[in-house]
Amino acid sequence: MWHLHQYPLCPFSRKVRLLLGEKGVPYSLVRENPWEQRDDFLQMNPAGRTPVMRDAERNITLADSVAISEYIDETVSANPMISGTAQYRAEIRRLVAWFDEQFYGDVTQPLLHERMKKRLIDRQPPDSRVLREAMKLANGHLDYVDYLIDHRAWMAGSVMSMADLAAAAQISVADYLGGIDWTGHEQTKAWYAMFKSRPSFRPLLSERMEVITPPKHYEQVDF
Amino acid sequence: MWHLHQYPLCPFSRKVRLLLGEKGVPYSLVRENPWEQRDDFLQMNPAGRTPVMRDAERNITLADSVAISEYIDETVSANPMISGTAQYRAEIRRLVAWFDEQFYGDVTQPLLHERMKKRLIDRQPPDSRVLREAMKLANGHLDYVDYLIDHRAWMAGSVMSMADLAAAAQISVADYLGGIDWTGHEQTKAWYAMFKSRPSFRPLLSERMEVITPPKHYEQVDF
Repeated sequence: MWHLHQYPLCPFSRKVRLLLGEKGVPYSLVRENPWEQRDDFLQMNPAGRTPVMRDAERNITLADSVAISEYIDETVSANPMISGTAQYRAEIRRLVAWFDEQFYGDVTQPLLHERMKKRLIDRQPPDSRVLREAMKLANGHLDYVDYLIDHRAWMAGSVMSMADLAAAAQISVADYLGGIDWTGHEQTKAWYAMFKSRPSFRPLLSERMEVITPPKHYEQVDF
Repeated sequence: MWHLHQYPLCPFSRKVRLLLGEKGVPYSLVRENPWEQRDDFLQMNPAGRTPVMRDAERNITLADSVAISEYIDETVSANPMISGTAQYRAEIRRLVAWFDEQFYGDVTQPLLHERMKKRLIDRQPPDSRVLREAMKLANGHLDYVDYLIDHRAWMAGSVMSMADLAAAAQISVADYLGGIDWTGHEQTKAWYAMFKSRPSFRPLLSERMEVITPPKHYEQVDF
């Protein structure tokens, strides 16, 4: 069986967990705090990042959330998440990179730094200027998602794909950390409400990161 | 025909150009300075990043270097660069992410910022502390590449792959900017010397970015 090394607020691990859930692949969780840079963990992934997936019986270790996602989608045929024409697949991957890099860099990463790392590791208060900037950029990102959902049934087009999972993973962590103001984003809100009710997403939403409490609306399907 | 929007020192555009060269796909270059954030360019790619590939006749626009690479490898069968077993493909993609994210973040990005952007845009001298730190981290990265090349014929295993192209792209930009000290990295040096003589790489090495001159050894196959 797969063991997924992760921590509750890792957006890239959430993306992989949503994929495993949608595809019905069983796995167990192993808690890893990548900021501790444990030797055993660096042995598995020299990049020192979560998620890492390991199947000890088959002696397979996979690292990097994109490499893991492509592997799972290639080897488990149920509910393909990177499918369609080459051009559609390129659009899925463009949006995965958008959320993994742009949304993460603008929003999730600064929120995690200010609201999680500073509290857990540095024992410092967050910088409110950085938080305000991240929330402002989150608002711009949700405008773009509103635009996409206005023109398409799902993030990349007519079917649910890895792009939706990447978006939900980043948005859910930002929402947990109080970084999302949903006012005026009805399209994204409707898409996200539908996502929240999926069996692949429910277990993630019920988990908590120690010390940090999410806002009340975080877990609610109606919010 | 494909038009590739890029600038000479963009490592992600270099990765795509090496792939197009290895596969024999014709294309023409369109110069784009992403830091100008031109409206027309943002229309093609809201992320505002190079590379972007466009085929006007077929009305196809592709953005993000990973999405472009996967598209090209899926649609052009010559010299597959993401091939083999699912596990081998995962290793290729793990290393592509390693060079695109870790090497870029540690080495190429600070070098580009200090030696290109500060000079071209801000008209400021580079910060020698940042340069030293980038060169120190480059040394650690080359140690890892030495280790890989010691155990494998190519970066990801027995055949040349996207991992080699991603590595060569990042290393070549760092080398152009004087960030690589080759002393003590014989394995990586031998692999890179072989790479430099490939027809896919020659045209890139002969190009110059305005104002910035590379070190003498940059273009030489024997260095």
